[in-house]
Amino acid sequence: MASKRDKHVGITPRDEDFSEWYNEIILKSQMADYSPVRGCMVMRPYGFAIWEQVRDSLDRMLKKTGHENAQFPLFIPKSFLVKEAEHVEGFAKECAVVTHSRLKGTDDGVDVDPDSRLEEPLIVRPTSETIINSMYAKWIQSYRDLPLLINQWANVVRWEMRPRLFLRTAEFFWQEGHTVHETEDEAMEEVLRILEIYRSLAEDYLGVPVLKGMKSESEKFAGAERTYTIEAMMQDKRALQAGTSHHLAQNFAKAFQVKFQGRDGKEHFGWQTSWGVSTRLIGALVMVHSDDQGLVVPPRVAPHQIVCVPIFRNDEDKARVLDAAHKMLDPLEEAGIRVKLDDRDQYKPGFKFNEWEQRGVPLRLELGPRDVDNGKAILARRDTGEKLTVEAAEVTARVPGLLEEIQQSLFNRAKEFREKNMHRARSYEELVETLEQKGGFVLAPWDGDEAIEAKVKEETKATIRCIRDEDRGEKAPSIGSDRETDQWAIFARAY
Amino acid sequence: MASKRDKHVGITPRDEDFSEWYNEIILKSQMADYSPVRGCMVMRPYGFAIWEQVRDSLDRMLKKTGHENAQFPLFIPKSFLVKEAEHVEGFAKECAVVTHSRLKGTDDGVDVDPDSRLEEPLIVRPTSETIINSMYAKWIQSYRDLPLLINQWANVVRWEMRPRLFLRTAEFFWQEGHTVHETEDEAMEEVLRILEIYRSLAEDYLGVPVLKGMKSESEKFAGAERTYTIEAMMQDKRALQAGTSHHLAQNFAKAFQVKFQGRDGKEHFGWQTSWGVSTRLIGALVMVHSDDQGLVVPPRVAPHQIVCVPIFRNDEDKARVLDAAHKMLDPLEEAGIRVKLDDRDQYKPGFKFNEWEQRGVPLRLELGPRDVDNGKAILARRDTGEKLTVEAAEVTARVPGLLEEIQQSLFNRAKEFREKNMHRARSYEELVETLEQKGGFVLAPWDGDEAIEAKVKEETKATIRCIRDEDRGEKAPSIGSDRETDQWAIFARAY
Repeated sequence: MASKRDKHVGITPRDEDFSEWYNEIILKSQMADYSPVRGCMVMRPYGFAIWEQVRDSLDRMLKKTGHENAQFPLFIPKSFLVKEAEHVEGFAKECAVVTHSRLKGTDDGVDVDPDSRLEEPLIVRPTSETIINSMYAKWIQSYRDLPLLINQWANVVRWEMRPRLFLRTAEFFWQEGHTVHETEDEAMEEVLRILEIYRSLAEDYLGVPVLKGMKSESEKFAGAERTYTIEAMMQDKRALQAGTSHHLAQNFAKAFQVKFQGRDGKEHFGWQTSWGVSTRLIGALVMVHSDDQGLVVPPRVAPHQIVCVPIFRNDEDKARVLDAAHKMLDPLEEAGIRVKLDDRDQYKPGFKFNEWEQRGVPLRLELGPRDVDNGKAILARRDTGEKLTVEAAEVTARVPGLLEEIQQSLFNRAKEFREKNMHRARSYEELVETLEQKGGFVLAPWDGDEAIEAKVKEETKATIRCIRDEDRGEKAPSIGSDRETDQWAIFARAY
Repeated sequence: MASKRDKHVGITPRDEDFSEWYNEIILKSQMADYSPVRGCMVMRPYGFAIWEQVRDSLDRMLKKTGHENAQFPLFIPKSFLVKEAEHVEGFAKECAVVTHSRLKGTDDGVDVDPDSRLEEPLIVRPTSETIINSMYAKWIQSYRDLPLLINQWANVVRWEMRPRLFLRTAEFFWQEGHTVHETEDEAMEEVLRILEIYRSLAEDYLGVPVLKGMKSESEKFAGAERTYTIEAMMQDKRALQAGTSHHLAQNFAKAFQVKFQGRDGKEHFGWQTSWGVSTRLIGALVMVHSDDQGLVVPPRVAPHQIVCVPIFRNDEDKARVLDAAHKMLDPLEEAGIRVKLDDRDQYKPGFKFNEWEQRGVPLRLELGPRDVDNGKAILARRDTGEKLTVEAAEVTARVPGLLEEIQQSLFNRAKEFREKNMHRARSYEELVETLEQKGGFVLAPWDGDEAIEAKVKEETKATIRCIRDEDRGEKAPSIGSDRETDQWAIFARAY
């Protein structure tokens, strides 16, 4: 019955139009909606509830490793943004500029009051390195004040020419960590510690397998010395950058005079890192796990881990069925499982089955009067569609294990898909051919030549996603040249 | 010893300069700092951790009552803001206007690119009724979609001429709830349900006693039919509006066409509410509880509920003392108490005592080698300064009760203070005299005459804080007239 409805409701299949499929998944599950503000989206309660799970999971990991949250201003004076040359270069072309502070009535209605022009324009933060470092310069005096490990959950704004729900929106939500250390080694340890936390967030919570590696010079963050990244593969075999961790060296410290008296009594510039993940992760979750029936949410970040759809035709049945449902669900709720009982009268079970399927709830508990009589219940898995008939008395005990199984299975499936779509190429021609014909991630020997990197991008739209130490070893001529290298870079088309 | 240090460190006493005292409490406890952006502050980790406690407490209460979180855009197109006439009137004079989308290099450096002017200016949200209602119009079709109960945690911007840390800042943090109901009665129930939740947040968590009541016409929210408020009294006897809940009637529904098909098959406009509390609550917490030694934080919202300062002179003592400390603290932590062990080597105990006193941690556990030998420990209360010598084995059992006692005692002390400073006046002259000579909250008979309300404000700077049903009863001539009324309004100078 469910599958008939699906055809009726009609989500465009992945194979037909991946991009349209993606939008429909999000709109039909009511995760998000377009807003009347160009490039900005609305996160509806269901999408925001997923983000809350992701946010809280990461927040716990960051706090456990000694990071504290703070809040810095939304606005950045223009003079701050320009202090780090590469940084302003990176963000100047896509920023929201506040120039006035009042509206006033005119003959035509209400307009910007020209007399309210600000002395200095303010930029709505595209990222906060500059404003945060201006405060750090004030707070840090001695090595005793280090390390300083601060994180901020915030909205940031970058105008986007081609906005996409969750993936590229003018305003988006993220966390940005900004740390200061005594030595370069400690800063590098932090960069990698965070990268590992990001890997764990993506893999262990979102069920999204990622590769950890370093960005090439041309792909690194504007103002960083080195950028590390986690890269995931979507079901259309394109890459998605899911989080970055930057080694800033002393670039911002020098621009903003973040100095401390060291153990040697002398003045030193701080060594810094910054790092972030955003609501983009939700886009990755959608594109890695969902299917032609709708959204699939991994249990650990699902707002509802199990939804119960009771089946009844009259009030007497309803009372019996709800009573039996509560006996199964209440202990689950007490054990910390996120349970939803859909006892709405105005909708039929088939409609509810379809709705929760489209919204990706990992487990569905079906329970009717006959089930109650027989002491049975049905558990349906969203990931496989499998239906299990279970003794009523065993439902409570079975659910946590099933959720864990679904979590693992989603991750494994995505990982197998990625492995299957990773290729090797040993020449420029082979690289281009593999990218064009197979897609996916393609490893190729590359010694750092930026001209050839640009040429690959121009010809195939693929970029270097990351470079990993573990791919070193085999020696081969760097693509497009006869210089030998043992460095292999991962090329892919990306979001 | 602690008191000597205090004099040395020197917080300006409340009696000498309340306003300076307030600023110093916040800066010295490292709750917040001034930022280089005019009117914007930085919430440092300690202040933000208090806000996290407040936020999470309220978030739990809102979710329990069926509210869901969502996120709407930061920007509001000018044409949206002007749709509700009173609303734009209320916010036009203090808004941040985004007019351009790029910077570009010029001969003098970097400046706003004049070619990037937006077609329509965007206002950084001062509140979100307009943008949210534009979405509700799309989402709501039938009475089945109601009630719609959405909350948003967000930053908002209103330029402030006289900014004050936490109390009035250009950017501030709040939650704004926006609900739609089938009937006016249901909307009014929601308005009062939220007002009661706000009372509970203020009294049961922040320990800040509040009066619940209605605002006068001149003090209500721009666009509301009626505004309800919770009002608190600070230690300088001035009032602080700590939260508001608005009955919007159908004002915004009509401006934005938020309509639904009712049970009668006909089309109706939705009945709406909106409501918010902000980081201003932290300002109330500071001004209600703190003393001349520094900040005092009520246990339920304290980032650290108990801080342990171990005392040792050598490594052997240190090991013994820390071992004993962990035996007391670990079970507390497991029981959910927020524990801080200050084992920093570079600072002496006296310095730490003073620091945690200034930062308002409710309980301090002092533990030295002799205490360990004698099986004792000292618990010092921040609110009273009282020191209790306690059997080591009993510390764990005593702490939760002591924290509860401190929470209650802070609330009671503040409530007694407010009761002592509430007065009655039966004429205009008596009202003015009481406001000038005694300050505090003054009840006076007032029948709604806006001219006399304005005159009181001009002469004394006092405004009507709220009007309560429970103050009705005694009949008297309305101030400045001979018209009898049984309505009594509460006047006070306010933040």
